[in-house]
Amino acid sequence: MSSTLTLDKSVLVDRAKASMRQHLQAPAWSVRQKVALTCRILFAQGHDSGLAGQITARAERPGTYYTQRLGLGFDEISPANVLLVDEDLAVIEGEGMANPANRFHSWIYRQRPDARCIVHTHPPHLCALAMLKRPLVVAQMDACMLYEDVGFLADWPGVPVGNDEGVLISAALGGRRAAILAHHGLVVAAQSVEEACVVAVQCERAARLQLMAEAVGDIARIDPALAREAHDWILQPTRSAATFAYFARRVLGALPPGSQTLHDLQAGEVSPAAALP
Amino acid sequence: MSSTLTLDKSVLVDRAKASMRQHLQAPAWSVRQKVALTCRILFAQGHDSGLAGQITARAERPGTYYTQRLGLGFDEISPANVLLVDEDLAVIEGEGMANPANRFHSWIYRQRPDARCIVHTHPPHLCALAMLKRPLVVAQMDACMLYEDVGFLADWPGVPVGNDEGVLISAALGGRRAAILAHHGLVVAAQSVEEACVVAVQCERAARLQLMAEAVGDIARIDPALAREAHDWILQPTRSAATFAYFARRVLGALPPGSQTLHDLQAGEVSPAAALP
Amino acid sequence: MSSTLTLDKSVLVDRAKASMRQHLQAPAWSVRQKVALTCRILFAQGHDSGLAGQITARAERPGTYYTQRLGLGFDEISPANVLLVDEDLAVIEGEGMANPANRFHSWIYRQRPDARCIVHTHPPHLCALAMLKRPLVVAQMDACMLYEDVGFLADWPGVPVGNDEGVLISAALGGRRAAILAHHGLVVAAQSVEEACVVAVQCERAARLQLMAEAVGDIARIDPALAREAHDWILQPTRSAATFAYFARRVLGALPPGSQTLHDLQAGEVSPAAALP
Amino acid sequence: MSSTLTLDKSVLVDRAKASMRQHLQAPAWSVRQKVALTCRILFAQGHDSGLAGQITARAERPGTYYTQRLGLGFDEISPANVLLVDEDLAVIEGEGMANPANRFHSWIYRQRPDARCIVHTHPPHLCALAMLKRPLVVAQMDACMLYEDVGFLADWPGVPVGNDEGVLISAALGGRRAAILAHHGLVVAAQSVEEACVVAVQCERAARLQLMAEAVGDIARIDPALAREAHDWILQPTRSAATFAYFARRVLGALPPGSQTLHDLQAGEVSPAAALP
Repeated sequence: MSSTLTLDKSVLVDRAKASMRQHLQAPAWSVRQKVALTCRILFAQGHDSGLAGQITARAERPGTYYTQRLGLGFDEISPANVLLVDEDLAVIEGEGMANPANRFHSWIYRQRPDARCIVHTHPPHLCALAMLKRPLVVAQMDACMLYEDVGFLADWPGVPVGNDEGVLISAALGGRRAAILAHHGLVVAAQSVEEACVVAVQCERAARLQLMAEAVGDIARIDPALAREAHDWILQPTRSAATFAYFARRVLGALPPGSQTLHDLQAGEVSPAAALP
Repeated sequence: MSSTLTLDKSVLVDRAKASMRQHLQAPAWSVRQKVALTCRILFAQGHDSGLAGQITARAERPGTYYTQRLGLGFDEISPANVLLVDEDLAVIEGEGMANPANRFHSWIYRQRPDARCIVHTHPPHLCALAMLKRPLVVAQMDACMLYEDVGFLADWPGVPVGNDEGVLISAALGGRRAAILAHHGLVVAAQSVEEACVVAVQCERAARLQLMAEAVGDIARIDPALAREAHDWILQPTRSAATFAYFARRVLGALPPGSQTLHDLQAGEVSPAAALP
Repeated sequence: MSSTLTLDKSVLVDRAKASMRQHLQAPAWSVRQKVALTCRILFAQGHDSGLAGQITARAERPGTYYTQRLGLGFDEISPANVLLVDEDLAVIEGEGMANPANRFHSWIYRQRPDARCIVHTHPPHLCALAMLKRPLVVAQMDACMLYEDVGFLADWPGVPVGNDEGVLISAALGGRRAAILAHHGLVVAAQSVEEACVVAVQCERAARLQLMAEAVGDIARIDPALAREAHDWILQPTRSAATFAYFARRVLGALPPGSQTLHDLQAGEVSPAAALP
Repeated sequence: MSSTLTLDKSVLVDRAKASMRQHLQAPAWSVRQKVALTCRILFAQGHDSGLAGQITARAERPGTYYTQRLGLGFDEISPANVLLVDEDLAVIEGEGMANPANRFHSWIYRQRPDARCIVHTHPPHLCALAMLKRPLVVAQMDACMLYEDVGFLADWPGVPVGNDEGVLISAALGGRRAAILAHHGLVVAAQSVEEACVVAVQCERAARLQLMAEAVGDIARIDPALAREAHDWILQPTRSAATFAYFARRVLGALPPGSQTLHDLQAGEVSPAAALP
């Protein structure tokens, strides 16, 4: 009856990937919509810390970025209050101002042409690690998306509105998808808004699990080869897009039916998740 | 006035069991409905971890199973998106694909003819124990349903889409109702969907209590004979069905009145809990 | 301008008590309503553990008690499903059965004529202490209502449906308002439903604070004389009734306007809190 | 293209401040409204502890204060039940009585002419520190608003309805914005209702992060000069007003549309945040 229970893992992995590319779909949100959805997803996932934190995503014209308006909480962001700014944070489209602490984003984008989205938040569990100057320990399968992919900035340069912070944070990040900033919080630089969102969610979750575990004992190390395999498996763009779409549905489902915000955050069409960056 | 305050415990236990069989009732949900309700109950009980996790239940035809569609969160499952699949995870009824990590379920069902439902999730407190490679310590009465009934897989075989994982996980589970999978999560194999659901809920709760206690001191061991007595008392099918029905009512009560999902999850008739399953 | 900033504390305490008796009011709920409200308050305060736990309150006729129907969660209790039972747990009024684990309540009522209400729950933080066999350490002002008023049963007698458990639990409680039952949970015996409710809420809160503190260091002991003074200050019946009424308003405010449950839980008239038992 | 990526930090800080004064706006709430909103914000931020806690704010006439009515929870306060009282806590406007434990506020106002608002709550994480007699360790950027600005009262004077408590608490506070009261809770004295609110929120958050971190290891100390710079940056009145306005919008957004409470809490006009307080 069964024809696959004797197949090798590599064959099964390839089949699973092909099947996921075929079956997993995600709505075709605009970049502005995805920036706003990411703000709301991160709020729902516990990244809330008042008015702190910012997200940016590359816009069409080089050196321009979408970012949320300063003075609003992550749960208040919708496409209508996402600004278009330049590297100096001057507003090109939209009302209000960007967070002046966005400055280090410009430095990261210059150094990382692959990065299309940067998320910076102060989630509580990751901040507790940052107060301990303790790097993230990746030891659970879902967290393997972060394996060897989270840097650490041990120096705290103070209020991050200057250019020196851009240099320091870019260097700590290097080519990685994320970094813990001592005494400060999290920074993520990823190849799509979707990936930045799911990496940021996982960073806080992994920090939470690490704190719970280390309050009780020593975390067992995982096999590096298997962790790297899981890292690549989890970070397939199809999966990131599908997970982002799921988190987005939770956000949309909590909005009042018929509201303007819900309308502004809904995508017009649905396309294969595989087509998303 | 009182006629029972001098009776022996064994007499009282027998009377209580008979009374519960008579008085506790549960709706006659279909298997598809129970699978979907279990997803939603586990979500509400904190088992959420993005798109990770799966549930399966035996369908009528041998070698076929109900499972939730990949790409949806546990809070999105309803009978309409529960698939019927075979041992190779090929879809017999429904749209989309099963989670390719369901593969190890097929191995467990082959080894465990008594198991009618398998739950696999990544709940946070249990995952923290799994990062410590620390077995569950059962030391509270409600948790006694897990006494000597939770195995431990110390090896992490990596992304679980291969057949080797099926062999390893089946062996770690043995004849038990549950196992902790190091660096990974939880697996439950039980004689009904209802039992699988309440066992999974209790595993995460017990892990949470263990972490809170062990952060502070050493857990006192319980008397094995009393723990075994409580194990059997708690796992009476009547009680599992009544607890499942209560959790299901909480899920149903949170759905919008008149919604299609609510309609699809409601049972037609009510039957004595003792008749389940 | 100020006439009281030079007065002695004893004078101020007396004036405050008189003023509270005059100004604090509470609705005149029936005992059935108060039993149902307590179930819902305790659920909202985190005492939820599936179908475990019971509450009883003395009814008018000696040897009879109100209690919630088995098979329902604490969040489902309303006056319509509160049963009237006798010492043997035989149902006098209402449908269904009482929790067979209510048996030890009969023993406590026999030993404690002052007790008019007994609450038994398995709240998570208190259960973690119970797994450590660690007594409650009272070291915060609000928790002083529990100072020297919480006993400890170090033996776990197993499933509590027998009469032996009644003897053991009654002895551990003694003349106190509460006791921690090792490997099990909490029992409260108080002079009114209101007092039982607020004592139960505070026991879990105090356990939570203790666990958070002891995970980090040693709790500083408080001055016994001041703790006793605070104990008596906090447990004034006027205050318990006012706090109960506030918690009840939160429960009522979360119910759908116009619902039958809301109607059944609303008191007809308002009377001075001081008039409540 | 970029004209600011070579500027000095001091220039950027000045530009950012000017820009925030121009762009950040906040509604012109009345003092009564701000007192009520602060109660509701603190409730939402986890400061709930039954009927404990009080807030006062200076009213127009010297020696008079607004405060919430005793017997209501923080989530029930609206302008209609905010009382006007004198130093003796005698009610000048409104029904009911003030919390007799407000007495120490009168002592603080006498000693601190700069203080326009006092908040006193029993938030759980800060209370756990208070049980350990452990001072707050400021080691995360957002918490820098508290750097060298939180005192400690090591003595617990018991039920705080006397005048001695006023002397002790005032002395522990000194010229600082906040103090931890051993075995008791938090007190904040700030130059505006908005500032008192955001300082109180941050105190509990900082205590939570400290407990999570210290359960696992030693917190790394931050550079005092940078911490002081961040302290002053964060406490700009424009920022406090903007953060308060954001928290207030969350509170208002959770109220039923069209309700009287929502109407009573809404400001008539919007003015630049810089004009507050």
